[in-house]
Amino acid sequence: MTRIKLGMVGGGKDAFIGAVHRIAARMDDRFELVAGALSSTPEKARESGRALGLAPDRTYDDYVAMAKREARLKDGIAAVAIVTPNHMHAPVAREFLKRGIHVICDKPLTATLAEARKLVAAAEKSDALFILTHNYTGYPLMRHARQMIAEGALGRIRVVQVEYAQDWLAEAPEPDNKQAAWRTDPAKSGVGGSTGDIGTHAYNLACFVTGLKLDSLAADLDAFVPGRQVDDNGHVMLRFQGGAKGMLWCSQVATGSENRLTLRVYGEKGGIEWGQENPNVMRYTPLGGVTQLLTRNGASGTTTGTRVPGGHPEGYLEAFANIYAAAADAIDAARTGEKSSALYPTIQDGLDGVAFVDACARSSRRNAAWITL
Amino acid sequence: MTRIKLGMVGGGKDAFIGAVHRIAARMDDRFELVAGALSSTPEKARESGRALGLAPDRTYDDYVAMAKREARLKDGIAAVAIVTPNHMHAPVAREFLKRGIHVICDKPLTATLAEARKLVAAAEKSDALFILTHNYTGYPLMRHARQMIAEGALGRIRVVQVEYAQDWLAEAPEPDNKQAAWRTDPAKSGVGGSTGDIGTHAYNLACFVTGLKLDSLAADLDAFVPGRQVDDNGHVMLRFQGGAKGMLWCSQVATGSENRLTLRVYGEKGGIEWGQENPNVMRYTPLGGVTQLLTRNGASGTTTGTRVPGGHPEGYLEAFANIYAAAADAIDAARTGEKSSALYPTIQDGLDGVAFVDACARSSRRNAAWITL
Amino acid sequence: MTRIKLGMVGGGKDAFIGAVHRIAARMDDRFELVAGALSSTPEKARESGRALGLAPDRTYDDYVAMAKREARLKDGIAAVAIVTPNHMHAPVAREFLKRGIHVICDKPLTATLAEARKLVAAAEKSDALFILTHNYTGYPLMRHARQMIAEGALGRIRVVQVEYAQDWLAEAPEPDNKQAAWRTDPAKSGVGGSTGDIGTHAYNLACFVTGLKLDSLAADLDAFVPGRQVDDNGHVMLRFQGGAKGMLWCSQVATGSENRLTLRVYGEKGGIEWGQENPNVMRYTPLGGVTQLLTRNGASGTTTGTRVPGGHPEGYLEAFANIYAAAADAIDAARTGEKSSALYPTIQDGLDGVAFVDACARSSRRNAAWITL
Amino acid sequence: MTRIKLGMVGGGKDAFIGAVHRIAARMDDRFELVAGALSSTPEKARESGRALGLAPDRTYDDYVAMAKREARLKDGIAAVAIVTPNHMHAPVAREFLKRGIHVICDKPLTATLAEARKLVAAAEKSDALFILTHNYTGYPLMRHARQMIAEGALGRIRVVQVEYAQDWLAEAPEPDNKQAAWRTDPAKSGVGGSTGDIGTHAYNLACFVTGLKLDSLAADLDAFVPGRQVDDNGHVMLRFQGGAKGMLWCSQVATGSENRLTLRVYGEKGGIEWGQENPNVMRYTPLGGVTQLLTRNGASGTTTGTRVPGGHPEGYLEAFANIYAAAADAIDAARTGEKSSALYPTIQDGLDGVAFVDACARSSRRNAAWITL
Repeated sequence: MTRIKLGMVGGGKDAFIGAVHRIAARMDDRFELVAGALSSTPEKARESGRALGLAPDRTYDDYVAMAKREARLKDGIAAVAIVTPNHMHAPVAREFLKRGIHVICDKPLTATLAEARKLVAAAEKSDALFILTHNYTGYPLMRHARQMIAEGALGRIRVVQVEYAQDWLAEAPEPDNKQAAWRTDPAKSGVGGSTGDIGTHAYNLACFVTGLKLDSLAADLDAFVPGRQVDDNGHVMLRFQGGAKGMLWCSQVATGSENRLTLRVYGEKGGIEWGQENPNVMRYTPLGGVTQLLTRNGASGTTTGTRVPGGHPEGYLEAFANIYAAAADAIDAARTGEKSSALYPTIQDGLDGVAFVDACARSSRRNAAWITL
Repeated sequence: MTRIKLGMVGGGKDAFIGAVHRIAARMDDRFELVAGALSSTPEKARESGRALGLAPDRTYDDYVAMAKREARLKDGIAAVAIVTPNHMHAPVAREFLKRGIHVICDKPLTATLAEARKLVAAAEKSDALFILTHNYTGYPLMRHARQMIAEGALGRIRVVQVEYAQDWLAEAPEPDNKQAAWRTDPAKSGVGGSTGDIGTHAYNLACFVTGLKLDSLAADLDAFVPGRQVDDNGHVMLRFQGGAKGMLWCSQVATGSENRLTLRVYGEKGGIEWGQENPNVMRYTPLGGVTQLLTRNGASGTTTGTRVPGGHPEGYLEAFANIYAAAADAIDAARTGEKSSALYPTIQDGLDGVAFVDACARSSRRNAAWITL
Repeated sequence: MTRIKLGMVGGGKDAFIGAVHRIAARMDDRFELVAGALSSTPEKARESGRALGLAPDRTYDDYVAMAKREARLKDGIAAVAIVTPNHMHAPVAREFLKRGIHVICDKPLTATLAEARKLVAAAEKSDALFILTHNYTGYPLMRHARQMIAEGALGRIRVVQVEYAQDWLAEAPEPDNKQAAWRTDPAKSGVGGSTGDIGTHAYNLACFVTGLKLDSLAADLDAFVPGRQVDDNGHVMLRFQGGAKGMLWCSQVATGSENRLTLRVYGEKGGIEWGQENPNVMRYTPLGGVTQLLTRNGASGTTTGTRVPGGHPEGYLEAFANIYAAAADAIDAARTGEKSSALYPTIQDGLDGVAFVDACARSSRRNAAWITL
Repeated sequence: MTRIKLGMVGGGKDAFIGAVHRIAARMDDRFELVAGALSSTPEKARESGRALGLAPDRTYDDYVAMAKREARLKDGIAAVAIVTPNHMHAPVAREFLKRGIHVICDKPLTATLAEARKLVAAAEKSDALFILTHNYTGYPLMRHARQMIAEGALGRIRVVQVEYAQDWLAEAPEPDNKQAAWRTDPAKSGVGGSTGDIGTHAYNLACFVTGLKLDSLAADLDAFVPGRQVDDNGHVMLRFQGGAKGMLWCSQVATGSENRLTLRVYGEKGGIEWGQENPNVMRYTPLGGVTQLLTRNGASGTTTGTRVPGGHPEGYLEAFANIYAAAADAIDAARTGEKSSALYPTIQDGLDGVAFVDACARSSRRNAAWITL
């Protein structure tokens, strides 16, 4: 049993998602965090490194230095987790990819579509893996749903309703809310506000579960809070290849919604409904039949990627850890040259997501005209 | 205490909504059904009349004869309930309106927009009242929500999400299903399938509760079931006057949904969420506050139009009866010349609904182009 | 079609349950209210009669006069609804029973066990029917559950958990709350407070659904509100004949509970769970299988005693009306001499209920000793 | 930052709770597993040690050897997690306690009351801490509820309803189900079946949240499955010191229940309701007020012991990890001699739990007589 050596860029004090990545990496004990460039402020980077128990010589002030030195070390990191604001994903990722270090990157892939395309090209030139943490695909019942649909339990899909509603940006937050600050700054978040931050999750999850490809979309985006420079609400009509239709709603001004990500899929033979806030149960109704409550690890059978028995709830961190577990599988396989069937969101999913955000913005500027992806 | 003499057109054997109207009319004992032209088949009309205990001489084979004779009788009907398929609403209503008999009419108002406009003109010439049974507006908590919004509890409205999902037409139903037959026949249902049958309810409820007027819409309609001649799924983006945005989804192919009408409204100061299948509770979240479960007749105060204490559920029939109770108030007031503040859906609401259906169809034919109402 | 002539004793102004009985009787149009002794105060009795449209000569000041005269009238009432406080049920019922007038009586049957026994004897001497309005047995899904259990879907029953929790008496209510006043006055309510008012409902429903007979009970009753003369909380352990065990909890001080009547039954082959506040759905889990959501009139088949399609909620009044519908069936059958299979709570159920309340009180006085019924 | 060196007894292959303890210990990166006697079968112990990456010389065949050697090592373990079947808790714990090694022990404390008392005496003689993993007390909303009650938000408590229902033992499980085998063997599980395995959790949680002490109980226990030697269903009436009353139901034959632990507490000023299967929300109703949905880390304020924002569900593992986090706080404080206010279940809670199980058994044998604790 050997733990994968992991580095981290971003995720210092005051960050949110860095701590999530660290717990997720630790959950199944397959990674060991050994290096970091945890902040763009050197002093904060070092303080954060100390707090995490990193060795001083592997606490870096800057990610380029880290990439260079770790690549040369005999026991240097095999993978890096990138948990910076969006605009930094691409430059950081490139430094590690080109040195053959696997990248585990937060979403959305990049701040702009042009950057995303360049990053895909960089990844193609590299032998390193690229894992994107669209963490909601790690929920066991979403994986179960994907499998059910792939096996035909719902028949040909007709309608996909997906939503991600929050309320934490219903007002302009205090200036010292760091999370809100960069997420509403187009220079850092990219062209999309709610579409980039949570709409991409909804879009990715819908495609992951249904296996459908989007043909085109029409989007009506708003920035309801005065002075806001990015969208905080998006209404999107979806047309999938093959004829399925859908709607996607993302909002950060829906008061009463914490992280209300819900997915409903209806096909010729049945329908499913699931919500992230109580993720251990999924409704499934076969055509003409009674609605069933499928539970994680419940009577319908063992669910992939679950650690405790049915009725003992798993949540966000466990789902996130399932992405890390898949990353570990893939990285281990890459080392030994084995073929891996590990299921994780890829850089292509990331490109699709940024293309989605970009198309939403273009459609909205053109009065919700249809944009073909 | 005098009961209002009521007639009925349609609602004979095999009908669904006629029985609902009769129970609703009876609930508060303010109407007395005394006459009917209950079927277009004379024999069935008479048989149905007998079953309901109508006097033989007030059981009519045809609604024109009924309108003429009842208008001449000293104790003739004061009001008529029209519960026929959609295409008959207008011709029947006109016969009674022009004789000063109040009309209580099922929705949608008419099968076509042209008919709706003519009917409005006919109603304007008449002294009789016109009550449209958009029954979901009769739910006490929807009336409470309307009042909360009118009083500013939610602030300026930003987002309206409304849905009405069913699954009973997910397959082509048996040919002998009378309800399905006329509802999927454009000659009887009108231009809209799901949009006309349930989309109008969703649209009407959203406007009733929020007080908003629709500016324009973009609709993407489908007929997923092979051979179906009317839409069975509609995705509609909404732009309200004043800047609020919304989405409306209506579907009759959403397997697992019985009568899933839900309304969610988010404003600058709070949000509400309600679903028809469990209508005695509504979520309300003030901005920055904790979500509250408001119950019908519960601790937040007595709710208008409720008959039993909180925790004793009221349902569809009680809500429907609230429309009849308002009709009775208005009819009584009309008789005495008093001013009435009775709250019921009007012929104008009916015209708006048909205009909505018509606009959806036109928008969808034009690739979901925006149509201004 | 002939409506059954109905009289009412009690149910005047300020009453609660009388109005419920009237709506329930009217729901299916099989009764016609023609006479009443609506209050013990003559003036209020007459005023209430006028408000209900009763003829003046059939508005009585006193129930004995009513029973005598109605029995003599050619078109006198065939049935009487008794909706007085508990202590009046027995004397009123006897007057009508002995004159062959069918009795529809609110629960609990009487205020004391001695009275209940005498009333049973009186009913046995009479040809008239006795229908007790344990209205929760009228819920379609409770009838469905009863049938499922009778057909063996749950196998031999092991455990029965039943509760009825309210909170409206968590404080001593205002002195002018008439409903609270008589319900907390042992001279009017009888020996039981919460046990008599709602515990009997829970007990009756559990027996109705499971078909089990209680062998013995051990009860620990409390009056938590200072000065209260009757129990406001009851904890009861149940032993049924045949070996099933159960718990019953009734409370009127459970803050946050409106009318939380829930029933859960677990057998060797499956379990069911149902709650009155959202009565249109019932969980059913076959042993080793996935939990199903059975809905009223849903995909599992048409449910007995339902008026509108699945997904259109029915509630308390409809369930109550199902008792009246059964009463009408039984009364019609009695008139023609036909055999009736109408399902309604009987005077024997009423006696069982009062015996339950009496046993709870005796057990509690003896430190929760086991009392055999 | 220094991780606490941790050992483990039990928890090898095929075990369930050992893996849970390891994840919980790892969640916040404050422990490092370095030694183990993971199985009573030497070969399996070594294989399990290898799988977990333990050094061969710290993989022990037997817990006595482990205790002796680790106590002598300079960097020996500071704490041991005991995750064996119940009957082994006491002998294992004593070996470590007497050598000053902190004990983190699964519940129930011991298999018998006599053992529990002896273990308490042993713990009193030791300087080592004793942490009992009644993990449900780690749920953030249960800690919040405890604090609310301590601060008087519910007023004087009147009624406590607590349940833990499962269905996995509704039939006699397969002979090769190791978890079921020892849990239904009185030699290993102790005198209680469902009462010991899950009833203790329910009892502990009720006391933890309310701060009440049990005065006496009356229990009616059953073994419904033929041949079962321990109880699989328990009905218990509770009388708390100070006058509050309660009911506890534990069952392993309640088909349709996975891990349905629910707690409801009603006081003079309000009530709360919570269920483990969806633990991120708690209902709270102030007397006379509207029910509120308090969420973990939601609008009512930051909740203690939570790692991700509201709406991102946390579950069983996070709650379990909160016990480990408290253990780490206490162990760190013990090392430095600081006073710690870390909140974790103690050996006294363990003794109380075993006393509860013992009293249930005695009461049940005496026809549910009251037993004073």
